[in-house]
Order: sequence, then structure tokens, then C-alpha cells
Amino acid sequence: MVETIPPRSGTAFTLDRGQTLTVIDPEGKQVADLLAFSRNDLREVISSGRTLDYASRLYLTTGDPLYSNRSNVMLRIVEDTVGRHDFLLTPCSKDTFRIIYGDTDPHRGCFGNLAAAFAPYGVTEDDIPVAFNCFMNVPIDGLTGSFTVEPPLSGPGDHIRFTAEMDLIIGLTACSALQSNGGAFKPIQYRID
Amino acid sequence: MVETIPPRSGTAFTLDRGQTLTVIDPEGKQVADLLAFSRNDLREVISSGRTLDYASRLYLTTGDPLYSNRSNVMLRIVEDTVGRHDFLLTPCSKDTFRIIYGDTDPHRGCFGNLAAAFAPYGVTEDDIPVAFNCFMNVPIDGLTGSFTVEPPLSGPGDHIRFTAEMDLIIGLTACSALQSNGGAFKPIQYRID
Repeated sequence: MVETIPPRSGTAFTLDRGQTLTVIDPEGKQVADLLAFSRNDLREVISSGRTLDYASRLYLTTGDPLYSNRSNVMLRIVEDTVGRHDFLLTPCSKDTFRIIYGDTDPHRGCFGNLAAAFAPYGVTEDDIPVAFNCFMNVPIDGLTGSFTVEPPLSGPGDHIRFTAEMDLIIGLTACSALQSNGGAFKPIQYRID
Repeated sequence: MVETIPPRSGTAFTLDRGQTLTVIDPEGKQVADLLAFSRNDLREVISSGRTLDYASRLYLTTGDPLYSNRSNVMLRIVEDTVGRHDFLLTPCSKDTFRIIYGDTDPHRGCFGNLAAAFAPYGVTEDDIPVAFNCFMNVPIDGLTGSFTVEPPLSGPGDHIRFTAEMDLIIGLTACSALQSNGGAFKPIQYRID
């Protein structure tokens, strides 16, 4: 059954070891921030630093494992029709909209949406690390290290699929930042098998 | 007064708002992993994801602020004689040496050294995020996103200086990984003014 996350919102759900999670961009050019915590111990959480170090690559795709802060594999990418995702940047937040966009009455962003969705599971704001940002397109200038946030390369129906290698709590959003999503806020869909 | 951190070890100390911390590479080509926690609330910690997002640049240098997970400035780089540091990778650990180097009896690495040094302050292993890796040279291929860990660009006496913008607990190491340090383990020095 396909679930829909409305534009600029987020959700959290459990994913059992061995299940697969498919994250779908139904309309195209829409980012979905993904976070994972271990159900056995909430202090074990997805880690960009560990994952990138072991991959020696910023752009992850089919076959790549996503590690926790304790160097255990949490998820593995088993299918990817896009091939460009970001694992550098924290979920957009009130502070992002204040500092980068200059908004005076900022949206709570993916960060606020994730914190609200995780609250029933006991995960708090300070526990939220760098997310695996599905479909987020952050090209990097290798010479200067400068990067920009460009529209996703995903078209309607593109998707990325993960298998869970431990029992997890997953947070997932339809990202709230204009820059990341080609200037429009669209839904995200997901399916658990 | 200049303090010396012996090769493959680490330390932790307090740094008051307004003080400056100078991290010195006395012999050249040696990395120093740096972490910062707020003294007022250990749940506020240095954040690569926030910092890189606001800088739109992977390579940070003079003038750049280092943000916390709550989007407050913790430290600001005020002098930098090298211009190449890493803010992508977690401190090297037993798991790093096991997974990347294939060691059967792995060193505890910067991660273990930092955890031990932070223990008296109440910071635990799971609290340790991506470090700001002074002098660590991680060139990136912008096209593929692949990166390598190369010898630091620092020569003897090169240094980076930070001012504290809040009361902090700092962790600092002389990095324990061969790859990061041009194949030899050297000391790191620091000074607080």
C-alpha cells in the first residue's frame, strides 16, 4: 500500500529488519529527508560521517550501506532510479529559513516536521543528525569545495529502495525548502514491503 | 603556554567565551580532530551539517563560523595558515581500522581517545559527531563525488586559530590514522589565550 506525505510535512513509522522501504517522488523534483534510529536503542542513529568515510564517496546509490554512529549497517540501498542524493546537510529548519532565506516568520521545516513525528517514539530535536536526503541534488566544485542546491534530477515516479538490516524507526518528509525542490512543494510517497 | 598532545592521543579542556584556541602542527602533515560541546548543555554540539549548509562550502577557513546543532555559533576561525581542513568524516575508531585498514587488533583511534578524554565531563561515545578535522586533506572529485584522504598540506608550525563564542568543552587529538597523516604519527600542540 502506497502512503502519501503531503507537501511540507513529515511522518515517522517502524521498519522491521528484512523489510524494504521504497521512497517515491510521484511528481518529480521533490526531496525527501530520511532519518533512521535503532528501535533497540535510540542512541544508535544514522551517521553521514561513518557512511561517507567507509564509502569514500559523497554520492551514494544501489549497493551502498548506510551506517549508524556505532558502525553497524542500518539500511542498504537496493534500487535507485535517480543516482543523486545528498548526505551532507541537516534537515531544513526555522534557522535555515531565517539564516539562508531571511524569512521573518519561518516555517518549521523538515527539522520541525521530523521532531513532531518522532516525538511519540521518544526522539527529541537534539537527537536529529544529518539526514539522508533522497533526490537532493547538491553538486560540488571539487576545486573550491563550494556547492549549490539545485533542482532534483528525479522525474515523476522515480524512486529509491532500501532494505532494513536492523529494526528501525524511520522519519521521512516531503521537504519544505524552495531551493531543494525546484521552486515548488510536492508530496512524497512511500511503500513498505 | 603551549601544550603538547603526544602522537595517537587526545585531550579535553574548557574554553571560555572570548578566549582563542590555536591548534598548531609542530612537525607538519599531522591532523587534529576537534570537537566542541556547550558547557551549559552537553546536548548542544558542533554540527557539520548546519555549518556546511550555511557556508555552502566544504572547505572552511578564516572568517567562517562553526555552528552547533541548534544553529548557534560555537567557534569562529580567525586565522588559518593552511586553508584545507575536513568537516565530512567522523573521528577514526576501532571500526575505521577494522573496516578500512583490515586491522585485527585495532587502535581505539581518535574516537576512543576523545571518548576517554570527554568522560570526566559526562560526554559519552554516542554523543560524538563528525569532527572538525584540522589540517585533514580530503580532495573531492566533483563529478563522481569520490574522495581520497591525502597527506595534509600543513608544514612545520602551521596553525589554525579559533575564537569561542560560547563557553565550551573542547576535545582535541593528534590523529591516529596513517592515511590522514602522511604515513607517520606526530604530536599536535595547542595554546589558549
